[in-house]
Amino acid sequence: MMRTHTCGELRITDTGKKVTLAGWIQRSRDLGGMTFIDLRDRYGITQLAFNMETQSDLCRQARELGREYVVQAIGKVVERSSKNRKNPTGEIEIIVQELKVLNPAETPPFTIEDETDGGDDLRMKYRYLDIRRNPVRQNLELRHKMAIETRNYLNNVDFIEVETPVLIKSTPEGARDFLVPSRMNAGQFYALPQSPQTFKQLLMISGLDRYFQIVKCFRDEDLRADRQPEFTQIDCEMSFVTRDDVLETFEGLARHLFKQVKNIDNVTFDRMSYHDAMKYYGTDKPDTRFGMRMGELNEYARDKGFKVFDDAELVVGINAAGCAGYTRKQLDALTDWVRRPQIGAKGLVYVKCNEDGSFKSSVDKFFDQDQLKSWADALDAQPGDLLLVLAGDDAATRKAMGELRLEMANRLELRDPNTFSCLWVVDFPLLEWDDETRRYYAMHHPFTAPLEEDMDKLNSDPGNVRANAYDMVINGVEIGGGSIRIFDRDMQAKMFEVLGFTPEEAQSQFGFLMDAFRYGAPPHGGVAFGFDRWCSLFGGSESIRDYIAFPKNNAGRDVMIDSPSEVDEKQLEELSLKLKK
Amino acid sequence: MMRTHTCGELRITDTGKKVTLAGWIQRSRDLGGMTFIDLRDRYGITQLAFNMETQSDLCRQARELGREYVVQAIGKVVERSSKNRKNPTGEIEIIVQELKVLNPAETPPFTIEDETDGGDDLRMKYRYLDIRRNPVRQNLELRHKMAIETRNYLNNVDFIEVETPVLIKSTPEGARDFLVPSRMNAGQFYALPQSPQTFKQLLMISGLDRYFQIVKCFRDEDLRADRQPEFTQIDCEMSFVTRDDVLETFEGLARHLFKQVKNIDNVTFDRMSYHDAMKYYGTDKPDTRFGMRMGELNEYARDKGFKVFDDAELVVGINAAGCAGYTRKQLDALTDWVRRPQIGAKGLVYVKCNEDGSFKSSVDKFFDQDQLKSWADALDAQPGDLLLVLAGDDAATRKAMGELRLEMANRLELRDPNTFSCLWVVDFPLLEWDDETRRYYAMHHPFTAPLEEDMDKLNSDPGNVRANAYDMVINGVEIGGGSIRIFDRDMQAKMFEVLGFTPEEAQSQFGFLMDAFRYGAPPHGGVAFGFDRWCSLFGGSESIRDYIAFPKNNAGRDVMIDSPSEVDEKQLEELSLKLKK
Repeated sequence: MMRTHTCGELRITDTGKKVTLAGWIQRSRDLGGMTFIDLRDRYGITQLAFNMETQSDLCRQARELGREYVVQAIGKVVERSSKNRKNPTGEIEIIVQELKVLNPAETPPFTIEDETDGGDDLRMKYRYLDIRRNPVRQNLELRHKMAIETRNYLNNVDFIEVETPVLIKSTPEGARDFLVPSRMNAGQFYALPQSPQTFKQLLMISGLDRYFQIVKCFRDEDLRADRQPEFTQIDCEMSFVTRDDVLETFEGLARHLFKQVKNIDNVTFDRMSYHDAMKYYGTDKPDTRFGMRMGELNEYARDKGFKVFDDAELVVGINAAGCAGYTRKQLDALTDWVRRPQIGAKGLVYVKCNEDGSFKSSVDKFFDQDQLKSWADALDAQPGDLLLVLAGDDAATRKAMGELRLEMANRLELRDPNTFSCLWVVDFPLLEWDDETRRYYAMHHPFTAPLEEDMDKLNSDPGNVRANAYDMVINGVEIGGGSIRIFDRDMQAKMFEVLGFTPEEAQSQFGFLMDAFRYGAPPHGGVAFGFDRWCSLFGGSESIRDYIAFPKNNAGRDVMIDSPSEVDEKQLEELSLKLKK
Repeated sequence: MMRTHTCGELRITDTGKKVTLAGWIQRSRDLGGMTFIDLRDRYGITQLAFNMETQSDLCRQARELGREYVVQAIGKVVERSSKNRKNPTGEIEIIVQELKVLNPAETPPFTIEDETDGGDDLRMKYRYLDIRRNPVRQNLELRHKMAIETRNYLNNVDFIEVETPVLIKSTPEGARDFLVPSRMNAGQFYALPQSPQTFKQLLMISGLDRYFQIVKCFRDEDLRADRQPEFTQIDCEMSFVTRDDVLETFEGLARHLFKQVKNIDNVTFDRMSYHDAMKYYGTDKPDTRFGMRMGELNEYARDKGFKVFDDAELVVGINAAGCAGYTRKQLDALTDWVRRPQIGAKGLVYVKCNEDGSFKSSVDKFFDQDQLKSWADALDAQPGDLLLVLAGDDAATRKAMGELRLEMANRLELRDPNTFSCLWVVDFPLLEWDDETRRYYAMHHPFTAPLEEDMDKLNSDPGNVRANAYDMVINGVEIGGGSIRIFDRDMQAKMFEVLGFTPEEAQSQFGFLMDAFRYGAPPHGGVAFGFDRWCSLFGGSESIRDYIAFPKNNAGRDVMIDSPSEVDEKQLEELSLKLKK
């Protein structure tokens, strides 16, 4: 036995016991007469004590141990004279009787501390050292707990986890696939799944009724900070359900995770139409921790002689409560902020609602006090508030105002990461028109059912058909999304037609699903959650990378193992492939 | 709401309730006055009743529904006059008041019954229909339960599940990798993991202490009936452990699964050296549900003038208890059996131990009664038993006798699938010599530690070094295996040298692990279980395919989705690849 206890386990009640511990040297302090070593493992830190007078050899040996040495110590638990109440083991220490170096360590390239001196690149190259740090280890522990609790919840409500295949078939619809050449079928390829969508629908057709899987998915897309080529979904599907059955089931999951992982009770979920989300928040994933809803000012602001507004499709404002005192400098900074290319507004109009009931604005030349008051009323402003107004094309201006709303909330510290506001956004458009390829694309995916009441517009006005689709949004982050699916073969064929597939293309790519619809497909629907993102939301981080043990960088590389890499010519030959120079 | 209850839920206590059910039509019986429909879902079957007299329209509608139609029925729960005690819902039926066809079904290509008329190929093509059958669905339910219980057990003893990457790096050592071309890094490739071996070792170096993962692994090998290109492992690793710590931990897991999944208590694990396994069972995965251990007869059988034995390296026998009455025909059949190329023996010698104490053998010409008695004594035979003896090269003959032992046990019905005999085989050889490539290969893998006491033979006599490796064997099936790992950089370098790697090759392929050993690697060891195989063992099947939702055939094809398949030229271009014609 290499240890009797972990480094997080011993308490004052263990005093007098002879114990064996093993772990890493976090730090050592040489106080002349005494040497102290903090011994660390995953579970905690325990202090080892060496007395120069009574154990000079052992003490000298201890003094030579460097940081991150792996050692085993045998000794006696004693009460500490100066206790450390912050450390659960801080009331005791070990008077070491035997000490053994299990493995020495070179000085690590960065400090193994909560706040490290290592930059991102270095930490990724030595990720195994980075994970020794508390914050990274705790992220992985949180992720583990999220997974265990997700499984237990879903298992308890009769979901079965089924593993769907990783080596599947490439379909051009959607994002770009990773391909896997087949050796046994020369010239042919598997693809890695972007999601198990068709398989989970087949599992509903197979009668499994309630399926889930925590599963790796893959997209060969150019990467951004919060995207990874491989990512993890909580993938779920249910039969014989309406939309509300699905929403209630997964509100239950969310409530369970809030309770078990964050110890938060009484979480409620609002429902908001896509239309309202865009109208009031300028985004389909509104952060509803705070109000500051957008208000349209067209009727109060246009046709009053201010050309910028008169030419605009939309004049829209928000009320930054209590900000009437903003200085010229602050307002200029905000104007610069909205003019950044990422936001793309031409300018920013402000109206200060003064404490005396008067108004001061950047467009005083064009609008009198009564007119400005009508804006303030429309935006529900009080004396002391600041109105911020943008104008321009409808879609772009709404989006820009949505961004400005978030920025103002950041400045006003209205986005507390420990407050959670949850909602479902529902009734998304079914289709999006793409000007470049001159065709419709499915906003969610081609298997999403239209809303019953919009069915008849599928021929006449496809762009205005709403989908029976929904996204779970928490604090402005899209945690997951799903839909009620098409389960009728003719309807699915119609959908492929609307998306510009020939019947032959539909058959060759999705024939197995279309065929399955012939044999008794039940009504079904489901949802998929971005597991990495949910973990990062609960952990309070913006980057999903912090919650992935071995993430890839933005070039899709694992810098630790140096992958991808070149392979032997012989391997390519076996796969009937050649590199194109 | 599409249903108020499932088809497995209603009992006599629900009588009088108005309910809505939904499911598939299993069968319908038209008895003139009454029509009965068995409505099926995952949870069970409930009988729907239609009365021709009182509800003629509804009854006529019901009669037209075909097998596997998906319907919704609203009606009242009533007590059945003729009860079916075998069905949990068999005391009630539903007098249907409303009936709605949710989706019609074409006649399925095979019957959806426990015993189907569908052949293997057809069932695989329509796997979603196959899964509707009870035995297949139950296999997937068993798998789900195994996974949940595995996770709960390991979570309870402080293991953390960590997802390791799927897109990793190709290494020529071991089996053939599946490659994934990288678009962003032209000419470079990821590989799919054959196991997360190096990652789990890095997680130990990162201090995670106890790791597990239920994880897909991939091997591009030619397939046999019980191999799949993608398969699932329960992958585990622990720090600061000796071999016995690992064995005890996973005996605990096995006992937990036996109890929770099979309701079997008091499972014990024997330990047997590789040497003894080969000596007494002719295999490194002995089926110990029965004895019939092999006994060497060299000293009793050689140098007595029978040339076949005199020329043999090994004469070895088993005692088939109670088989002295075998007929000439039965013995000839056994002889034919051992001569099959898969077994490869030249012939079979038998000795009948007659009830009167005399012996009758196929080699009476060469051996007298006393000599035959010495064989019988060596094999612990009693009157009425039958000795079966093979001779030849040591390794081949042991193996053949091991097979004959299993065959005799099959004939004697000693291999009850509901009896479980568990053991660890330990002290495997570290290395295997390959005559063709004239080098040693690691029997387990290059990261396995030699036994402490054999260390010094690593230079002088590498072929006789034993590994600190172990396999879990249940009923002759290797369920899992693992080892204590090398955690010292110099020792790992030495191992690569013995395996014929140049230092440069070792560094380029496993440099990240060798480097990690510099920074304080703890002693560690682990194990990986074949999850598909464990499920099939517990489910009583010989084929892992029965426990995989969507398996591939022996050509690596998914015949349901028709994959692998050809891809667009454009996709290959993006990957800088060309097909080699």
